[in-house]
Amino acid sequence: MNFSSKLLENAVAEFAKLPGVGQKTALRLVLHLLNQDKQEVERFSGAISKLRNEIQFCSVCHNISDLSICEICASNKRDRSLICVVEDTRDVMAIENTNQYNGVYHVLGGLISPMDGIGPSDLQVDTLVERLKTNEAKEIIFALSATMEGDTTLFYLHKRVKSFNITISTIARGIAFGGELEYVDEITLGRSITTRVPYENSLTK
Amino acid sequence: MNFSSKLLENAVAEFAKLPGVGQKTALRLVLHLLNQDKQEVERFSGAISKLRNEIQFCSVCHNISDLSICEICASNKRDRSLICVVEDTRDVMAIENTNQYNGVYHVLGGLISPMDGIGPSDLQVDTLVERLKTNEAKEIIFALSATMEGDTTLFYLHKRVKSFNITISTIARGIAFGGELEYVDEITLGRSITTRVPYENSLTK
Repeated sequence: MNFSSKLLENAVAEFAKLPGVGQKTALRLVLHLLNQDKQEVERFSGAISKLRNEIQFCSVCHNISDLSICEICASNKRDRSLICVVEDTRDVMAIENTNQYNGVYHVLGGLISPMDGIGPSDLQVDTLVERLKTNEAKEIIFALSATMEGDTTLFYLHKRVKSFNITISTIARGIAFGGELEYVDEITLGRSITTRVPYENSLTK
Repeated sequence: MNFSSKLLENAVAEFAKLPGVGQKTALRLVLHLLNQDKQEVERFSGAISKLRNEIQFCSVCHNISDLSICEICASNKRDRSLICVVEDTRDVMAIENTNQYNGVYHVLGGLISPMDGIGPSDLQVDTLVERLKTNEAKEIIFALSATMEGDTTLFYLHKRVKSFNITISTIARGIAFGGELEYVDEITLGRSITTRVPYENSLTK
């Protein structure tokens, strides 16, 4: 693209680095910002720069936090004997939204993915093992995506934690609520038959 | 959404104000930025803030520019007797990319749109009339979108400039190159028949 201004070109190039944002979308977004008040744009760029410079990660669960210990880990209403292991903060938000979980979390910060050069040492695995050594936890729940990366990570983590005297579980996989049988893929359907549950357990509470 | 951090929530809220960006996309983009180096994020927020604070608009054609007169208006290779009137800088870029136009531009900064509260006084109309008063221009070409807003603006601008002793033209409308007749809408096809051109003029040069 032939930009009429170097400043415009720079801003578009920066926006186009974001995932899923191409040159045309970047230009549209930048022109939108150009049409806003200066204060408005200052708020936008300020919020991002402030976020990156001031954000902290909870020293216990490694979730994104404003303080050195996050609200969930600091709360005395949460059950510390139950640790749910997730990929990132979005999963914490998703599980919190269900209002079905009262334990604490452990945020790995990613999944093992050799293709992207992410190995166990890039994730919060050692800190998870350290947490288990304190004997506070009685159960650990793996809530990882049902993908190749999720399964690889699950396999690796299980090897690391199986020696501890705790219950190890994973979230249930099966047919989603509202899902029609004929549209479910074979692997999910096949597994949901082999891992069938007693009728009483299948009722929504 | 329940954010674990106020800083994160603010940044997501700012991103979600961008057109076409919802809360989930905003969160994905913000988490991507959080994973980048501090310098990288500083470059991003800096580029946007610098753009908004330092950008200028060409005093002649009102296109986005780094200087008070843009490259096109300052160039002595451009034909100043030909003014192409466009909505915004994206249209200038699109026309420049064709390599078919050697005149200068006039950027309106929008189109008349009563629905969005944009009237003629919000656009660079008076400055266009002033430019015509200098008698430098011999032809004015309206290159506006073929939409309701584009047509309204065209109608209004024509009224404002018709008293000048210049040629007034609009870009040709018709069937796009590569377009198959059976998929063209009736209005375009109908008009392309009534505004048919001599065979010699239809050849690509």
